[in-house]
Amino acid sequence: MSNPAVIDLLGVLAFGELVAFERTANDARFAPSVADKIALGRMAADEYLHFEAVSARIVELGADPIVAMEPFVEPLTQFHNTMQSKDWLEGLLKAYVGDGITADFYREISVYLDTQTAALVNEVLGDIGIAQFAVDHIKSAIADDAKVAGRLALFGRRLMGEMISQASLVANTRPALAGLFVNPPEGVVADLDSISTLVSRLTVEHSRRMDALGLAA
Amino acid sequence: MSNPAVIDLLGVLAFGELVAFERTANDARFAPSVADKIALGRMAADEYLHFEAVSARIVELGADPIVAMEPFVEPLTQFHNTMQSKDWLEGLLKAYVGDGITADFYREISVYLDTQTAALVNEVLGDIGIAQFAVDHIKSAIADDAKVAGRLALFGRRLMGEMISQASLVANTRPALAGLFVNPPEGVVADLDSISTLVSRLTVEHSRRMDALGLAA
Repeated sequence: MSNPAVIDLLGVLAFGELVAFERTANDARFAPSVADKIALGRMAADEYLHFEAVSARIVELGADPIVAMEPFVEPLTQFHNTMQSKDWLEGLLKAYVGDGITADFYREISVYLDTQTAALVNEVLGDIGIAQFAVDHIKSAIADDAKVAGRLALFGRRLMGEMISQASLVANTRPALAGLFVNPPEGVVADLDSISTLVSRLTVEHSRRMDALGLAA
Repeated sequence: MSNPAVIDLLGVLAFGELVAFERTANDARFAPSVADKIALGRMAADEYLHFEAVSARIVELGADPIVAMEPFVEPLTQFHNTMQSKDWLEGLLKAYVGDGITADFYREISVYLDTQTAALVNEVLGDIGIAQFAVDHIKSAIADDAKVAGRLALFGRRLMGEMISQASLVANTRPALAGLFVNPPEGVVADLDSISTLVSRLTVEHSRRMDALGLAA
Protein backbone atom coordinates (compact mmCIF):
# COMPACT_ATOMS: atom_id res chain seq x y z
CA MET A 1 0.00 0.00 0.00
CA SER A 2 1.30 3.42 -0.96
CA ASN A 3 1.86 6.50 1.08
CA PRO A 4 -1.65 7.68 2.06
CA ALA A 5 -0.72 11.27 1.16
CA VAL A 6 -0.02 10.18 -2.43
CA ILE A 7 -3.39 8.41 -2.62
CA ASP A 8 -4.99 11.62 -1.30
CA LEU A 9 -3.20 13.69 -3.94
CA LEU A 10 -4.35 11.32 -6.69
CA GLY A 11 -7.88 11.15 -5.24
CA VAL A 12 -8.35 14.91 -5.31
CA LEU A 13 -6.79 15.11 -8.78
CA ALA A 14 -9.10 12.37 -10.12
CA PHE A 15 -12.23 14.00 -8.72
CA GLY A 16 -10.96 17.40 -9.86
CA GLU A 17 -10.69 16.13 -13.45
CA LEU A 18 -14.16 14.60 -13.23
CA VAL A 19 -15.75 17.90 -12.18
CA ALA A 20 -13.57 19.83 -14.65
CA PHE A 21 -15.04 17.59 -17.34
CA GLU A 22 -18.57 18.42 -16.18
CA ARG A 23 -17.79 22.12 -15.98
CA THR A 24 -16.21 22.29 -19.45
CA ALA A 25 -19.03 20.28 -21.01
CA ASN A 26 -21.51 22.60 -19.36
CA ASP A 27 -19.67 25.65 -20.73
CA ALA A 28 -19.89 24.06 -24.19
CA ARG A 29 -23.67 24.49 -24.00
CA PHE A 30 -23.21 28.25 -23.84
CA ALA A 31 -20.58 28.46 -26.58
CA PRO A 32 -21.38 31.32 -28.98
CA SER A 33 -20.54 29.23 -32.07
CA VAL A 34 -20.53 25.59 -33.11
CA ALA A 35 -16.73 25.78 -33.59
CA ASP A 36 -16.32 26.92 -29.96
CA LYS A 37 -18.67 24.16 -28.84
CA ILE A 38 -16.51 21.60 -30.63
CA ALA A 39 -13.29 23.00 -29.10
CA LEU A 40 -14.70 22.85 -25.57
CA GLY A 41 -16.15 19.39 -26.17
CA ARG A 42 -12.68 18.11 -27.11
CA MET A 43 -11.23 19.58 -23.90
CA ALA A 44 -14.01 18.08 -21.79
CA ALA A 45 -13.43 14.65 -23.35
CA ASP A 46 -9.70 15.03 -22.60
CA GLU A 47 -10.50 15.85 -18.98
CA TYR A 48 -12.60 12.72 -18.71
CA LEU A 49 -9.79 10.60 -20.16
CA HIS A 50 -7.43 12.21 -17.61
CA PHE A 51 -9.80 11.22 -14.84
CA GLU A 52 -9.64 7.62 -16.12
CA ALA A 53 -5.82 7.67 -16.27
CA VAL A 54 -5.53 8.92 -12.67
CA SER A 55 -8.11 6.35 -11.51
CA ALA A 56 -6.11 3.59 -13.16
CA ARG A 57 -2.97 4.73 -11.30
CA ILE A 58 -4.85 4.70 -7.98
CA VAL A 59 -5.84 1.09 -8.70
CA GLU A 60 -2.21 0.21 -9.58
CA LEU A 61 -1.14 1.64 -6.22
CA GLY A 62 -3.55 -0.73 -4.48
CA ALA A 63 -6.35 1.68 -3.60
CA ASP A 64 -9.99 2.14 -4.66
CA PRO A 65 -10.58 5.32 -6.69
CA ILE A 66 -14.08 5.89 -5.30
CA VAL A 67 -12.75 5.65 -1.74
CA ALA A 68 -9.73 7.82 -2.61
CA MET A 69 -11.96 10.54 -4.09
CA GLU A 70 -14.56 10.45 -1.31
CA PRO A 71 -12.96 13.01 1.09
CA PHE A 72 -12.80 15.57 -1.73
CA VAL A 73 -16.27 15.18 -3.21
CA GLU A 74 -17.95 17.60 -0.82
CA PRO A 75 -15.33 20.43 -0.79
CA LEU A 76 -14.86 20.37 -4.59
CA THR A 77 -18.60 20.22 -5.25
CA GLN A 78 -19.04 23.05 -2.75
CA PHE A 79 -16.40 25.10 -4.55
CA HIS A 80 -18.06 24.59 -7.94
CA ASN A 81 -21.52 25.40 -6.57
CA THR A 82 -20.34 28.57 -4.81
CA MET A 83 -18.41 29.71 -7.87
CA GLN A 84 -21.06 28.77 -10.45
CA SER A 85 -20.16 30.73 -13.58
CA LYS A 86 -23.05 32.91 -14.74
CA ASP A 87 -22.01 33.12 -18.37
CA TRP A 88 -19.61 31.95 -21.03
CA LEU A 89 -16.75 34.32 -20.05
CA GLU A 90 -16.92 33.48 -16.34
CA GLY A 91 -16.84 29.79 -17.28
CA LEU A 92 -13.69 30.32 -19.34
CA LEU A 93 -12.04 32.38 -16.58
CA LYS A 94 -12.88 29.71 -14.05
CA ALA A 95 -11.28 27.01 -16.22
CA TYR A 96 -8.19 29.15 -16.86
CA VAL A 97 -7.69 30.15 -13.22
CA GLY A 98 -8.64 26.79 -11.74
CA ASP A 99 -6.49 24.71 -14.10
CA GLY A 100 -3.59 27.12 -13.64
CA ILE A 101 -3.64 26.93 -9.84
CA THR A 102 -4.07 23.15 -9.95
CA ALA A 103 -1.10 22.71 -12.28
CA ASP A 104 1.06 25.01 -10.14
CA PHE A 105 0.10 23.14 -7.00
CA TYR A 106 1.02 19.73 -8.44
CA ARG A 107 4.25 21.14 -9.87
CA GLU A 108 5.18 22.35 -6.39
CA ILE A 109 4.48 19.02 -4.74
CA SER A 110 5.69 16.70 -7.54
CA VAL A 111 8.98 16.15 -5.71
CA TYR A 112 6.99 14.18 -3.11
CA LEU A 113 5.65 11.74 -5.72
CA ASP A 114 7.27 8.58 -7.11
CA THR A 115 8.65 8.98 -10.64
CA GLN A 116 5.86 7.12 -12.39
CA THR A 117 3.10 8.98 -10.56
CA ALA A 118 4.86 12.32 -11.14
CA ALA A 119 5.08 11.59 -14.89
CA LEU A 120 1.36 10.75 -15.02
CA VAL A 121 0.43 13.91 -13.10
CA ASN A 122 2.59 15.96 -15.42
CA GLU A 123 0.89 14.45 -18.45
CA VAL A 124 -2.62 14.90 -17.02
CA LEU A 125 -1.95 18.55 -16.19
CA GLY A 126 -0.28 19.22 -19.53
CA ASP A 127 -1.75 21.73 -21.91
CA ILE A 128 -5.04 20.71 -23.52
CA GLY A 129 -5.42 24.15 -25.04
CA ILE A 130 -7.93 25.53 -22.55
CA ALA A 131 -5.66 28.35 -21.31
CA GLN A 132 -4.97 29.82 -24.74
CA PHE A 133 -8.60 29.37 -25.75
CA ALA A 134 -9.75 31.23 -22.61
CA VAL A 135 -7.15 34.01 -22.96
CA ASP A 136 -8.09 34.62 -26.61
CA HIS A 137 -11.83 34.77 -25.95
CA ILE A 138 -11.58 36.86 -22.76
CA LYS A 139 -9.17 39.41 -24.29
CA SER A 140 -11.37 39.78 -27.33
CA ALA A 141 -14.47 40.28 -25.13
CA ILE A 142 -12.65 42.97 -23.10
CA ALA A 143 -11.54 44.68 -26.32
CA ASP A 144 -15.20 44.78 -27.41
CA ASP A 145 -16.49 46.06 -24.07
CA ALA A 146 -14.07 47.36 -21.43
CA LYS A 147 -16.72 47.07 -18.67
CA VAL A 148 -16.34 43.28 -18.82
CA ALA A 149 -12.88 43.58 -17.23
CA GLY A 150 -14.06 44.80 -13.81
CA ARG A 151 -16.60 42.03 -13.41
CA LEU A 152 -14.12 39.33 -14.48
CA ALA A 153 -11.35 40.71 -12.23
CA LEU A 154 -13.72 40.43 -9.28
CA PHE A 155 -14.71 36.90 -10.25
CA GLY A 156 -10.99 35.96 -10.52
CA ARG A 157 -10.28 37.24 -7.01
CA ARG A 158 -13.26 35.33 -5.62
CA LEU A 159 -12.04 32.14 -7.37
CA MET A 160 -8.59 32.35 -5.77
CA GLY A 161 -10.04 33.13 -2.34
CA GLU A 162 -12.54 30.29 -2.49
CA MET A 163 -9.90 27.79 -3.65
CA ILE A 164 -7.61 28.69 -0.73
CA SER A 165 -10.48 28.46 1.70
CA GLN A 166 -11.64 25.01 0.48
CA ALA A 167 -8.03 23.76 0.34
CA SER A 168 -7.49 24.80 3.98
CA LEU A 169 -10.61 22.93 5.05
CA VAL A 170 -9.35 19.83 3.22
CA ALA A 171 -5.83 20.10 4.67
CA ASN A 172 -7.32 20.22 8.18
CA THR A 173 -9.13 16.94 7.71
CA ARG A 174 -6.32 15.08 5.90
CA PRO A 175 -3.35 14.94 8.28
CA ALA A 176 -1.25 12.76 5.92
CA LEU A 177 -1.59 15.38 3.21
CA ALA A 178 -0.79 18.35 5.48
CA GLY A 179 2.07 16.34 7.00
CA LEU A 180 3.83 16.01 3.63
CA PHE A 181 5.26 19.48 4.02
CA VAL A 182 6.29 19.12 7.63
CA ASN A 183 7.69 15.59 7.30
CA PRO A 184 8.79 14.98 3.72
CA PRO A 185 9.43 11.33 2.72
CA GLU A 186 12.98 10.11 3.25
CA GLY A 187 15.40 11.21 0.52
CA VAL A 188 13.26 14.19 -0.52
CA VAL A 189 14.83 17.61 -0.19
CA ALA A 190 11.78 19.80 -0.10
CA ASP A 191 12.00 23.52 -0.58
CA LEU A 192 8.57 24.19 0.80
CA ASP A 193 8.95 24.98 4.49
CA SER A 194 5.24 25.49 5.11
CA ILE A 195 1.80 25.58 3.60
CA SER A 196 1.86 29.39 3.74
CA THR A 197 4.99 29.45 1.53
CA LEU A 198 3.08 27.27 -0.94
CA VAL A 199 0.04 29.56 -0.87
CA SER A 200 2.14 32.69 -1.50
CA ARG A 201 3.87 31.07 -4.47
CA LEU A 202 0.52 30.01 -5.91
CA THR A 203 -0.80 33.54 -5.40
CA VAL A 204 2.12 35.04 -7.32
CA GLU A 205 1.49 32.73 -10.27
CA HIS A 206 -2.23 33.47 -10.14
CA SER A 207 -1.50 37.24 -10.35
CA ARG A 208 0.75 36.63 -13.33
CA ARG A 209 -2.08 34.80 -15.12
CA MET A 210 -4.57 37.57 -14.34
CA ASP A 211 -2.02 40.12 -15.66
CA ALA A 212 -1.83 38.17 -18.92
CA LEU A 213 -5.54 38.93 -19.32
CA GLY A 214 -5.08 42.58 -18.38
CA LEU A 215 -7.09 41.95 -15.20
CA ALA A 216 -6.17 43.20 -11.72
CA ALA A 217 -5.57 40.26 -9.38
CA MET B 1 -18.96 15.54 -53.88
CA SER B 2 -21.38 13.12 -52.30
CA ASN B 3 -25.11 12.89 -52.41
CA PRO B 4 -26.35 15.98 -50.49
CA ALA B 5 -28.87 13.81 -48.62
CA VAL B 6 -26.01 11.72 -47.21
CA ILE B 7 -24.17 14.86 -46.07
CA ASP B 8 -27.41 16.00 -44.43
CA LEU B 9 -27.79 12.66 -42.66
CA LEU B 10 -24.21 12.83 -41.39
CA GLY B 11 -24.57 16.51 -40.43
CA VAL B 12 -27.61 15.89 -38.26
CA LEU B 13 -25.95 12.80 -36.75
CA ALA B 14 -22.75 14.76 -35.95
CA PHE B 15 -24.62 17.61 -34.30
CA GLY B 16 -26.88 15.11 -32.53
CA GLU B 17 -23.85 13.41 -30.98
CA LEU B 18 -22.42 16.78 -29.94
CA VAL B 19 -25.59 17.77 -28.09
CA ALA B 20 -25.98 14.24 -26.71
CA PHE B 21 -22.50 14.66 -25.25
CA GLU B 22 -23.54 17.95 -23.59
CA ARG B 23 -26.78 16.44 -22.33
CA THR B 24 -25.12 13.34 -20.84
CA ALA B 25 -22.34 15.40 -19.23
CA ASN B 26 -24.99 17.67 -17.76
CA ASP B 27 -26.89 14.67 -16.36
CA ALA B 28 -23.62 13.53 -14.75
CA ARG B 29 -23.76 16.63 -12.54
CA PHE B 30 -26.99 15.33 -11.00
CA ALA B 31 -25.83 11.75 -10.58
CA PRO B 32 -26.77 10.46 -7.11
CA SER B 33 -23.40 8.74 -6.62
CA VAL B 34 -19.82 9.15 -7.78
CA ALA B 35 -20.01 5.74 -9.48
CA ASP B 36 -23.04 6.93 -11.52
CA LYS B 37 -21.20 10.16 -12.34
CA ILE B 38 -18.26 8.13 -13.68
CA ALA B 39 -20.53 5.90 -15.76
CA LEU B 40 -22.28 8.87 -17.36
CA GLY B 41 -18.95 10.66 -17.91
CA ARG B 42 -17.68 7.66 -19.87
CA MET B 43 -20.81 7.69 -22.05
CA ALA B 44 -20.51 11.46 -22.65
CA ALA B 45 -16.86 11.08 -23.68
CA ASP B 46 -17.90 8.28 -26.08
CA GLU B 47 -20.54 10.55 -27.59
CA TYR B 48 -17.94 13.24 -28.15
CA LEU B 49 -15.62 10.73 -29.86
CA HIS B 50 -18.56 9.65 -32.04
CA PHE B 51 -19.11 13.26 -33.04
CA GLU B 52 -15.44 13.42 -34.11
CA ALA B 53 -15.70 10.19 -36.11
CA VAL B 54 -18.77 11.43 -38.01
CA SER B 55 -17.09 14.81 -38.62
CA ALA B 56 -14.06 13.06 -40.05
CA ARG B 57 -16.29 11.09 -42.44
CA ILE B 58 -17.99 14.33 -43.60
CA VAL B 59 -14.52 15.72 -44.40
CA GLU B 60 -13.62 12.52 -46.28
CA LEU B 61 -16.75 12.95 -48.38
CA GLY B 62 -15.58 16.44 -49.36
CA ALA B 63 -17.84 18.56 -47.15
CA ASP B 64 -17.32 20.90 -44.19
CA PRO B 65 -18.75 19.53 -40.92
CA ILE B 66 -19.71 22.97 -39.58
CA VAL B 67 -21.62 23.73 -42.79
CA ALA B 68 -23.15 20.24 -42.81
CA MET B 69 -24.39 20.63 -39.22
CA GLU B 70 -25.66 24.18 -39.63
CA PRO B 71 -29.25 23.43 -40.83
CA PHE B 72 -29.79 21.20 -37.78
CA VAL B 73 -28.35 23.41 -35.04
CA GLU B 74 -31.54 25.36 -34.46
CA PRO B 75 -34.10 22.49 -34.54
CA LEU B 76 -31.96 20.22 -32.34
CA THR B 77 -31.16 22.98 -29.86
CA GLN B 78 -34.86 23.87 -29.84
CA PHE B 79 -35.75 20.25 -29.11
CA HIS B 80 -33.30 20.07 -26.20
CA ASN B 81 -34.46 23.39 -24.75
CA THR B 82 -38.15 22.48 -24.99
CA MET B 83 -37.53 19.06 -23.50
CA GLN B 84 -35.11 20.19 -20.77
CA SER B 85 -35.05 17.37 -18.23
CA LYS B 86 -35.97 18.58 -14.76
CA ASP B 87 -34.18 15.84 -12.84
CA TRP B 88 -31.93 12.83 -13.03
CA LEU B 89 -34.66 10.37 -14.09
CA GLU B 90 -36.05 12.59 -16.85
CA GLY B 91 -32.47 13.02 -18.12
CA LEU B 92 -32.02 9.25 -18.28
CA LEU B 93 -35.41 8.74 -19.96
CA LYS B 94 -34.55 11.41 -22.53
CA ALA B 95 -31.24 9.71 -23.34
CA TYR B 96 -32.90 6.27 -23.57
CA VAL B 97 -35.80 7.43 -25.74
CA GLY B 98 -33.75 9.84 -27.87
CA ASP B 99 -30.92 7.42 -28.57
CA GLY B 100 -33.39 4.64 -29.28
CA ILE B 101 -35.37 6.63 -31.85
CA THR B 102 -32.16 7.92 -33.45
CA ALA B 103 -30.73 4.42 -33.79
CA ASP B 104 -34.02 3.11 -35.25
CA PHE B 105 -34.15 5.98 -37.72
CA TYR B 106 -30.61 5.37 -39.03
CA ARG B 107 -31.26 1.63 -39.19
CA GLU B 108 -34.29 2.31 -41.38
CA ILE B 109 -32.37 4.59 -43.74
CA SER B 110 -29.01 2.78 -43.75
CA VAL B 111 -29.84 1.14 -47.08
CA TYR B 112 -29.50 4.60 -48.66
CA LEU B 113 -25.91 5.01 -47.42
CA ASP B 114 -22.67 3.79 -49.00
CA THR B 115 -21.15 0.75 -47.25
CA GLN B 116 -18.40 2.66 -45.46
CA THR B 117 -20.74 5.37 -44.18
CA ALA B 118 -23.30 2.76 -43.12
CA ALA B 119 -20.62 0.90 -41.14
CA LEU B 120 -19.56 4.09 -39.39
CA VAL B 121 -23.16 5.01 -38.55
CA ASN B 122 -23.72 1.53 -37.21
CA GLU B 123 -20.65 1.80 -34.99
CA VAL B 124 -21.52 5.29 -33.75
CA LEU B 125 -25.05 4.22 -32.85
CA GLY B 126 -23.86 0.99 -31.24
CA ASP B 127 -24.50 0.35 -27.58
CA ILE B 128 -22.48 2.53 -25.21
CA GLY B 129 -24.41 1.20 -22.25
CA ILE B 130 -26.74 4.14 -21.79
CA ALA B 131 -29.94 2.17 -22.48
CA GLN B 132 -29.28 -0.52 -19.88
CA PHE B 133 -28.06 2.09 -17.39
CA ALA B 134 -31.25 4.13 -17.87
CA VAL B 135 -33.55 1.09 -17.71
CA ASP B 136 -31.94 -0.14 -14.47
CA HIS B 137 -32.15 3.23 -12.72
CA ILE B 138 -35.66 4.08 -13.92
CA LYS B 139 -37.09 0.66 -12.99
CA SER B 140 -35.53 0.86 -9.57
CA ALA B 141 -36.92 4.38 -9.02
CA ILE B 142 -40.42 3.20 -10.03
CA ALA B 143 -40.12 0.22 -7.67
CA ASP B 144 -39.31 2.66 -4.85
CA ASP B 145 -42.14 5.06 -5.68
CA ALA B 146 -44.87 4.06 -8.11
CA LYS B 147 -45.97 7.70 -8.59
CA VAL B 148 -42.79 8.32 -10.60
CA ALA B 149 -44.21 6.18 -13.44
CA GLY B 150 -47.04 8.57 -14.42
CA ARG B 151 -44.76 11.57 -14.66
CA LEU B 152 -42.15 9.69 -16.70
CA ALA B 153 -44.77 8.18 -19.03
CA LEU B 154 -46.00 11.69 -19.80
CA PHE B 155 -42.46 12.95 -20.38
CA GLY B 156 -41.81 10.01 -22.74
CA ARG B 157 -44.92 10.82 -24.80
CA ARG B 158 -43.88 14.49 -25.03
CA LEU B 159 -40.37 13.44 -26.16
CA MET B 160 -41.72 11.34 -29.03
CA GLY B 161 -44.18 14.07 -30.09
CA GLU B 162 -41.52 16.80 -30.01
CA MET B 163 -39.04 14.67 -31.99
CA ILE B 164 -41.61 14.02 -34.74
CA SER B 165 -42.53 17.68 -34.86
CA GLN B 166 -38.92 18.90 -35.15
CA ALA B 167 -38.11 16.19 -37.71
CA SER B 168 -41.05 17.30 -39.88
CA LEU B 169 -39.82 20.89 -39.77
CA VAL B 170 -36.36 19.73 -40.84
CA ALA B 171 -37.68 17.50 -43.63
CA ASN B 172 -39.64 20.45 -45.05
CA THR B 173 -36.50 22.57 -45.38
CA ARG B 174 -34.19 19.83 -46.68
CA PRO B 175 -35.65 18.63 -49.99
CA ALA B 176 -32.72 16.27 -50.69
CA LEU B 177 -33.34 14.51 -47.39
CA ALA B 178 -37.09 14.25 -47.86
CA GLY B 179 -36.53 13.18 -51.47
CA LEU B 180 -34.53 10.11 -50.43
CA PHE B 181 -37.75 8.25 -49.71
CA VAL B 182 -39.55 9.30 -52.84
CA ASN B 183 -36.56 8.90 -55.20
CA PRO B 184 -34.16 6.36 -53.72
CA PRO B 185 -30.65 6.27 -55.27
CA GLU B 186 -30.23 3.93 -58.22
CA GLY B 187 -29.83 0.29 -57.24
CA VAL B 188 -31.51 0.74 -53.88
CA VAL B 189 -34.66 -1.24 -53.25
CA ALA B 190 -36.26 0.77 -50.51
CA ASP B 191 -39.08 -0.66 -48.46
CA LEU B 192 -40.13 2.71 -47.10
CA ASP B 193 -42.87 4.05 -49.33
CA SER B 194 -43.31 7.27 -47.38
CA ILE B 195 -42.26 9.31 -44.39
CA SER B 196 -45.45 8.36 -42.62
CA THR B 197 -44.53 4.65 -42.90
CA LEU B 198 -41.20 5.52 -41.30
CA VAL B 199 -42.88 7.45 -38.48
CA SER B 200 -45.25 4.61 -37.70
CA ARG B 201 -42.41 2.10 -37.53
CA LEU B 202 -40.44 4.40 -35.22
CA THR B 203 -43.54 4.82 -33.05
CA VAL B 204 -43.96 1.06 -32.68
CA GLU B 205 -40.34 0.70 -31.54
CA HIS B 206 -40.71 3.63 -29.16
CA SER B 207 -43.75 1.96 -27.56
CA ARG B 208 -41.77 -1.25 -27.16
CA ARG B 209 -39.03 0.66 -25.30
CA MET B 210 -41.54 2.38 -23.02
CA ASP B 211 -43.12 -1.04 -22.31
CA ALA B 212 -39.69 -2.33 -21.25
CA LEU B 213 -39.79 0.30 -18.52
CA GLY B 214 -43.36 -0.55 -17.56
CA LEU B 215 -44.50 2.86 -18.86
CA ALA B 216 -47.55 3.52 -21.04
CA ALA B 217 -46.47 4.97 -24.41
